[in-house]
Amino acid sequence: MLLMTSGMTPSRSQSAGASAADHAHALEQLSRLLGPDNVLTDAATLDRYGRTTGVRGTRPLAVVRPAHTAEVQELVRIAGGAGLKLYPISRGRNWGYGDAGAWEDGQVIVDLGRMNQICELNAQLGYVVIEPGVTAQQLYEYLQQARCGLWMDATGAGPEASLVGNTLDRGFGHTPYGDHVLSCCGMEVVLADGRVLNTGFGHYQNAQAHRVYRYGVGPSLDGLFSQSNLGIVTRIGLWLMPEPEDFAAFFLFVPEDEGLERIIDRLEPLRLDGTLRSAIHIGNDLRVISARLRYPFDRAGGKTPLPPELRRQLRRELRIGAWNASGSICGTRRGVADARRALCRALHPIRPLFVNDRRLALAGRLARWLGFCLFGRRLAEQVELVEPLYGLLKGIPTNEPLHGATWRVRDPRPRVAPDPLDAHAGLIWVSPVVPSTGRHAREVMGIIEPIYHRHGFDAPATFTMITERAMCCVTNISFDRRLPEEVEAAGRCYEELSDALYRAGYPPYRTGPMGMRKLRQGSEVFWDVVGAIKKALDPHNTISPGRYEPPAL
Amino acid sequence: MLLMTSGMTPSRSQSAGASAADHAHALEQLSRLLGPDNVLTDAATLDRYGRTTGVRGTRPLAVVRPAHTAEVQELVRIAGGAGLKLYPISRGRNWGYGDAGAWEDGQVIVDLGRMNQICELNAQLGYVVIEPGVTAQQLYEYLQQARCGLWMDATGAGPEASLVGNTLDRGFGHTPYGDHVLSCCGMEVVLADGRVLNTGFGHYQNAQAHRVYRYGVGPSLDGLFSQSNLGIVTRIGLWLMPEPEDFAAFFLFVPEDEGLERIIDRLEPLRLDGTLRSAIHIGNDLRVISARLRYPFDRAGGKTPLPPELRRQLRRELRIGAWNASGSICGTRRGVADARRALCRALHPIRPLFVNDRRLALAGRLARWLGFCLFGRRLAEQVELVEPLYGLLKGIPTNEPLHGATWRVRDPRPRVAPDPLDAHAGLIWVSPVVPSTGRHAREVMGIIEPIYHRHGFDAPATFTMITERAMCCVTNISFDRRLPEEVEAAGRCYEELSDALYRAGYPPYRTGPMGMRKLRQGSEVFWDVVGAIKKALDPHNTISPGRYEPPAL
Repeated sequence: MLLMTSGMTPSRSQSAGASAADHAHALEQLSRLLGPDNVLTDAATLDRYGRTTGVRGTRPLAVVRPAHTAEVQELVRIAGGAGLKLYPISRGRNWGYGDAGAWEDGQVIVDLGRMNQICELNAQLGYVVIEPGVTAQQLYEYLQQARCGLWMDATGAGPEASLVGNTLDRGFGHTPYGDHVLSCCGMEVVLADGRVLNTGFGHYQNAQAHRVYRYGVGPSLDGLFSQSNLGIVTRIGLWLMPEPEDFAAFFLFVPEDEGLERIIDRLEPLRLDGTLRSAIHIGNDLRVISARLRYPFDRAGGKTPLPPELRRQLRRELRIGAWNASGSICGTRRGVADARRALCRALHPIRPLFVNDRRLALAGRLARWLGFCLFGRRLAEQVELVEPLYGLLKGIPTNEPLHGATWRVRDPRPRVAPDPLDAHAGLIWVSPVVPSTGRHAREVMGIIEPIYHRHGFDAPATFTMITERAMCCVTNISFDRRLPEEVEAAGRCYEELSDALYRAGYPPYRTGPMGMRKLRQGSEVFWDVVGAIKKALDPHNTISPGRYEPPAL
Repeated sequence: MLLMTSGMTPSRSQSAGASAADHAHALEQLSRLLGPDNVLTDAATLDRYGRTTGVRGTRPLAVVRPAHTAEVQELVRIAGGAGLKLYPISRGRNWGYGDAGAWEDGQVIVDLGRMNQICELNAQLGYVVIEPGVTAQQLYEYLQQARCGLWMDATGAGPEASLVGNTLDRGFGHTPYGDHVLSCCGMEVVLADGRVLNTGFGHYQNAQAHRVYRYGVGPSLDGLFSQSNLGIVTRIGLWLMPEPEDFAAFFLFVPEDEGLERIIDRLEPLRLDGTLRSAIHIGNDLRVISARLRYPFDRAGGKTPLPPELRRQLRRELRIGAWNASGSICGTRRGVADARRALCRALHPIRPLFVNDRRLALAGRLARWLGFCLFGRRLAEQVELVEPLYGLLKGIPTNEPLHGATWRVRDPRPRVAPDPLDAHAGLIWVSPVVPSTGRHAREVMGIIEPIYHRHGFDAPATFTMITERAMCCVTNISFDRRLPEEVEAAGRCYEELSDALYRAGYPPYRTGPMGMRKLRQGSEVFWDVVGAIKKALDPHNTISPGRYEPPAL
């Protein structure tokens, strides 16, 4: 316990012997290197980067903004010499997993947002090479303008989120390229001593297959730089999907909670045999409700969590199921038709709703024509709701899912999803990985729901069939950051959820700073090996101390 | 240069201070640990493990054969203490890439062949958990008996090759699960100090998703243990493919050499958009000829390489093209039909030959009925030739491709492919990775063919579209190990091929011991980082010194 506590104090962020004077001197050097506009220490900036959707924010020592790799190399050298601790962020949209903030106090945030070049597009082999500052929206527009017939994958983190950042945190999206690790090919990494490492074949001069073959020759190092603090990734190759001849989105609504097992067990064989190749998202009613409304405190008589009767009522009003799935089918026209048939057969008697461009456009036109009557207005509403999700299934970035972050915020819901930090959203993700079987999904719901409820929270949950065999179960604690008692309850709820899930064998796919102390639970050897590699690559502990670096139990 | 030379001498394999007496004592300890039958130092055994298909074999100090992980842990501890160097092999069928031999003299070969348990089968989620001694044939028979509806992937290394070994060397096969790294989920690794590391989620007690989700949480370490010397892998999870509703193999014969570019550029879009999901192999005439015949020294008047007119003549006799492709389509009946149509459209006017179970059985019956006439005998011959390759496309192990290893051996070709070492086969693979475009393939052929010819060798070549964007070009130097002048020429040819390919930006996907000195060519930082990790995980350099550990240039 002593060890853990000392591990979490800011004192750890200072090298032995490094003084405040050393730090000030280093910041001056950085100011000369990057220009004074790119070394920020004013209170407003530090406050801004110190905000969190979690329980406790951190206060950085400074924010620095390099413009290219050579500057990053030089800045890690300066930082290393002066005992400064660096915390690189790409765009800082790591909502609910630490946001833009460093994981410990007193670190220098390295904001890579200015490094936003799309360095290469290869339309024939389907890839781009991008820097960390490139946002989802930026790449989307670039590909639209290039008319290269390639689709990207987008996530729920919104148009301003970084693609590199999301990939390194092993985020996932909705298209067949939803597993971002699998579409990443070749990393440029600045190491703690300023050297530049290129992974895969990238370290060979003139390497032809650098962006098309992931492993290179010899050990494959890419895995070291996702969810870690072993280097600063300044460039990656990202594979893109050829626009399919045909595309159909499908939506499923399962009225009863008990339908969860059935729907997973029926979809899984189709995921395993490749009939369904996109990430399939299966969200409960609360996931959908929280994306469309804010918590109806008035109708709930101020009580939390949502009373069961009101929950059922909202389900009816929004015409959604207890569980709601979405996914897509890409391929030739015949291939899509064939997969649709297979899906219908597997789900019978549940009937999926298929949507494609034609159908969506038609509904839109119909809604406009019939705008004078109730049916028309309802249809317009439906189209408006389906459109962003439909777009996501085609890799089109949208702000819509960010609405969910503000579920428990006690302000009126704006039309456009706000920045969760501006909106005082409290958001902590709890996201265990689950084998793709109904039994496992039910077991996880059985563990988390009572804990959420006990602490006064709802349990919005999505099971995403991210690969052929596994689902990420994404649930979240939503609270109002302005209410200290809710913040405290959220912290306690997180602890309990986390402990229970580790105990049952369901560690998370990803975690924010709060999760660090949990990471060693029930683990053996692994984190010691990671620590040894950290020591070998970053002996002065310059890069992101504390990030995926759990303190000893 | 001095550094390099000293790097390759056996002296490097002895820790400072470790003496022959220490080694002898350690071998006694190992003998007590494993039983005397499993610690072999007799000359015949050492000779056997010292053989090579390459230029220079190595002589081990001993061969030890642990039976389970705990024994491996204890043996690395004993070895580390006494300065013994260990070289783990799974089944030792690493043909043409070092075979069963250690990469430096004086190492103790750890033969993991006795660890041959299939520890778990999960038919619902499609995976097995296996030890290094499990052979391709063993798993194939196990799956047949279990009737679980799952297919494995098999390689050209033959039925006795280890699946773990092949996966760790990043070998590949012929089915949609041909990229073995992608089907590996969760490794158990014995580290140099005897600790056991479980990757992915495997280090968490009771981890439910261990075998279905690769990345775990925190950095992903699996990549460190393929093509490396950082640990001894004692167990892996291996994903298996659900048997498809329908299956069709396809074969393509392109008469002219110039057809290579066309065929790649037409297949690539189908590979990229997912119409074709299996590894597609495109072999030249020499690849096929060398698998079916031995070098016709008599018809060539003793000359090498094969005279162009004779080469064309053999092509006609075997009714093959200058380039010959094979691949498969798996899916529903409609899906397969649809992909067949797309393939025909893309290749027009070249017409692929489709083969499925029905058609093959029919041809077999027909050949038996018509056995009395020439047509029947020809048909029987054709069926016999196609069957093993057809089987490989369905993941059925076969010895047939091993025939190719003995192309230049001056003995009559036996019916059953012999062990390449028994047959005096000289075999060195040269296998650059190439972006999947015709232009790149042509460039590589343009580099290697003149070099092969200059040294008196043919250039059998296969371009395997192993992923959606890249091909492994697999070529090999074939020679007769009994002829010193051929062995020497092979060595010179390898040096020249290797240098030319690195220079042009085509490093190999994999290499044997001869390739180690080449690995740093044109490379920066990467190998230093690998060296630092090696030092962190294996400070006494106990495991496979020299393996994927290139000496400084």
